[in-house]
Amino acid sequence: MIKDLTAIVGDAYVLTGSDTEKWSHDWIRKYHYSPLAVVRPATTQEVSDIVKWANRTGTPLVPISGNTGLAGGGRADGAVMLSLDRMNTIREVRDASRIAIVEAGVVLADVHAAAEQQDMIFPLTFGAKGSAMIGGVLSTNAGGSNVLRYGNTRDLVLGIEAVLPNGEIMNIMSELHKDNSGYNLKHLLIGAEGTLGIITAAVLKLHPKPKAYATAMVAAPSLPAALDLLNRLQEATGGAVEAFEYMPRHHIEAYMQIKPGAREPFDAPYDVNIMVEVGVTAPRDATPGPDGQIPVTGYLEDVLAQMFEEGTVLDAVVAQSQAQRQDMWERREAAAEIAMSRLPIVSNDIALPLDKVATFLEIMETRLPQVDPAAQPVIVAHLGDGNIHYTVWPGSQDEDVHDAIMEATEEEVLKLGGSFSAEHGIGTSKLPSMRRRKNPVALQTMKAIKAALDPNNILNPGKLLP
Amino acid sequence: MIKDLTAIVGDAYVLTGSDTEKWSHDWIRKYHYSPLAVVRPATTQEVSDIVKWANRTGTPLVPISGNTGLAGGGRADGAVMLSLDRMNTIREVRDASRIAIVEAGVVLADVHAAAEQQDMIFPLTFGAKGSAMIGGVLSTNAGGSNVLRYGNTRDLVLGIEAVLPNGEIMNIMSELHKDNSGYNLKHLLIGAEGTLGIITAAVLKLHPKPKAYATAMVAAPSLPAALDLLNRLQEATGGAVEAFEYMPRHHIEAYMQIKPGAREPFDAPYDVNIMVEVGVTAPRDATPGPDGQIPVTGYLEDVLAQMFEEGTVLDAVVAQSQAQRQDMWERREAAAEIAMSRLPIVSNDIALPLDKVATFLEIMETRLPQVDPAAQPVIVAHLGDGNIHYTVWPGSQDEDVHDAIMEATEEEVLKLGGSFSAEHGIGTSKLPSMRRRKNPVALQTMKAIKAALDPNNILNPGKLLP
Repeated sequence: MIKDLTAIVGDAYVLTGSDTEKWSHDWIRKYHYSPLAVVRPATTQEVSDIVKWANRTGTPLVPISGNTGLAGGGRADGAVMLSLDRMNTIREVRDASRIAIVEAGVVLADVHAAAEQQDMIFPLTFGAKGSAMIGGVLSTNAGGSNVLRYGNTRDLVLGIEAVLPNGEIMNIMSELHKDNSGYNLKHLLIGAEGTLGIITAAVLKLHPKPKAYATAMVAAPSLPAALDLLNRLQEATGGAVEAFEYMPRHHIEAYMQIKPGAREPFDAPYDVNIMVEVGVTAPRDATPGPDGQIPVTGYLEDVLAQMFEEGTVLDAVVAQSQAQRQDMWERREAAAEIAMSRLPIVSNDIALPLDKVATFLEIMETRLPQVDPAAQPVIVAHLGDGNIHYTVWPGSQDEDVHDAIMEATEEEVLKLGGSFSAEHGIGTSKLPSMRRRKNPVALQTMKAIKAALDPNNILNPGKLLP
Repeated sequence: MIKDLTAIVGDAYVLTGSDTEKWSHDWIRKYHYSPLAVVRPATTQEVSDIVKWANRTGTPLVPISGNTGLAGGGRADGAVMLSLDRMNTIREVRDASRIAIVEAGVVLADVHAAAEQQDMIFPLTFGAKGSAMIGGVLSTNAGGSNVLRYGNTRDLVLGIEAVLPNGEIMNIMSELHKDNSGYNLKHLLIGAEGTLGIITAAVLKLHPKPKAYATAMVAAPSLPAALDLLNRLQEATGGAVEAFEYMPRHHIEAYMQIKPGAREPFDAPYDVNIMVEVGVTAPRDATPGPDGQIPVTGYLEDVLAQMFEEGTVLDAVVAQSQAQRQDMWERREAAAEIAMSRLPIVSNDIALPLDKVATFLEIMETRLPQVDPAAQPVIVAHLGDGNIHYTVWPGSQDEDVHDAIMEATEEEVLKLGGSFSAEHGIGTSKLPSMRRRKNPVALQTMKAIKAALDPNNILNPGKLLP
């Protein structure tokens, strides 16, 4: 095996034994595993050769890039791990057509930096941006904090290159905004978690860089009041709200514990803390008015002042500098670190219709203690798109109780028309949920597609599909 | 057969012989065919029963809704046509969550009207909107004039209900903005032209209704100058350009011929005529300024005035009333009617990288006469997204020459990184192009998926896949 693989990528890029330590656990160290080997190809052709070899020898392959997934999609027991980290070239950033052409191993933050150098943005962003790589970002259809305005990963991809389960290279690196020539295979592979192909490169859509941001922390008396704030801000800004993030009191408290000396959002503690960010591109909007204010900040302050008068906003702080804005984002992006600060966790990444989020959280206040009286939820939510990270620190160490927490959560989510996996995907952690809750016709269709494209079950077997 | 079908839908809804006349040709009467029967189910369950019957009896089914396709996707020789026209209920339009839930037989214009009643829009629009129905709109991933701002059909759909080739009903009518629970089957069925399933209902995304539109006809000295106009307008409006439509001189002349007495866009004829529309939602932008102008019109006029000074705009007329705006749209939307006013036509619906459109048209000025000296192009283009409807009135009546025109067009398109089918799809008319030009690995993958999901080749056989 090792000989075959070194023949493809060279001696230095096949790792075994203790050299694979870095690849033998996930980011939050929930899963530990022992890949047969880690192979690090440098080109799409090498990826193709490895996949063909895997088919010949019947060896399961687990593709990995930044390894920041939260659902166990990178577990690699009895499999060869195929790391895309060496394929890290940003091939092109083009201003006129607003695209970036990047390889799978490029770190998300490096895409951000390359776009900004040409006064554009790649809007997709989330806590793990400094490690997450484009291959995994696409394979999990990552979401994050800007979905409200710019959509999920799939909405930001024009074309892909991928190695299919049979080892063929499929080059559909289109730069086109319209292309109706057959089934949309790009959307099939995006979010397929490496089970239908290994994405090796992509054409990404860039957006004009907002000329001004207004960012604020707002304390609201309730979640419905927070939703009202969102709707009024969307109306006042013509839909320019980019982030609308909910942090309950316990998130703030936990943040202060892991970052002693960090700034508290308000002088007093509140239950419903919202971080809101508005971005505007039109230069006319970005010209400071006679009062010296950039109007976009004005919109935000007008709405906040009015709602403060009405009592529908309890307190608000608008960032007055880039440093203050950064503080607000860091507080939100610490969510994964906070969750991991106490183990074990039961992780639920769920989506609900917007107007059902408050209902769900109320129901769980009764339901959760019934399952595990000492359980403690540690929640943050992308409130603007109905996505709650409903993490629980269980009181019990019994894994059956952990499963029961997850089942109870899902049950309530599905009753309200939601999804048991909003943006983290399925991996292995949500396989029981797929089995229990996924529409059976959809599931059967997925299995038929997987069997047709990967008859030897080579690519990331045992993931996504129960 | 008739007995089986009437048992499912009732006597009145199975048509044969001369009763099928309406369903025996496409909209532009390019294709004529004789369906074995036309069956008109009223419910998803009836659609399912028909598909199961088709599998049992090995009868090909051709789904049809508004029958406004331009690629022969509805041709039904030796097949039963399944018309969705009776499934025409708008089930819900919800303001708070900005969605419409509609059945496949709802006419696009009726979706527009229902959304507008609640001060929202369903932005997708094109010439055939008064006949095209949602089922076909989704199955062809229709484009149109607003893609620049709002995306293609697939970008405006949250969930679907579909009957799969085996007759199973797949209900994935999600209202969620994030859902990463397995392969994205919605995107697989959208644009599959009824070959992988019959879409019976959908959850559509609505948008806030722009508070103000500014619409103008602009004469530019060249296509590159027109592109410069687009970029400057996007910058001045923060990306609020909704339509940017190119009409060459011959389109205007042809329009005057089919609509005698219609208004000419300018006093003098120009080669490069652009219809541009900007829409703004923010109320602050829609408040008339001290000069009585709504600022969005101001943006447009500022840019146009400046470019007129520079000589990069030759003439411009801004619509001063809804009637004038309507005139401008009618002139553009007459494109299909103009093309059809002289038969036969060679229809090329192509997409190019934005900065290659002018290059392509220049090349074709030389290339087309080499293939057919008397051929005459009748072009319109969604210039903002690189989509050209490169229709040709051939000089020769020889079908081989028509094929040669199409092949020459495709060859030049693909050399420039474009697509031979931007928004009209494949149907039967582009099957030779799929065979010749589609990425062979992608094509083989599509065939594997079709074989896996429709092993009896029941749904719309002979379409999309060569």
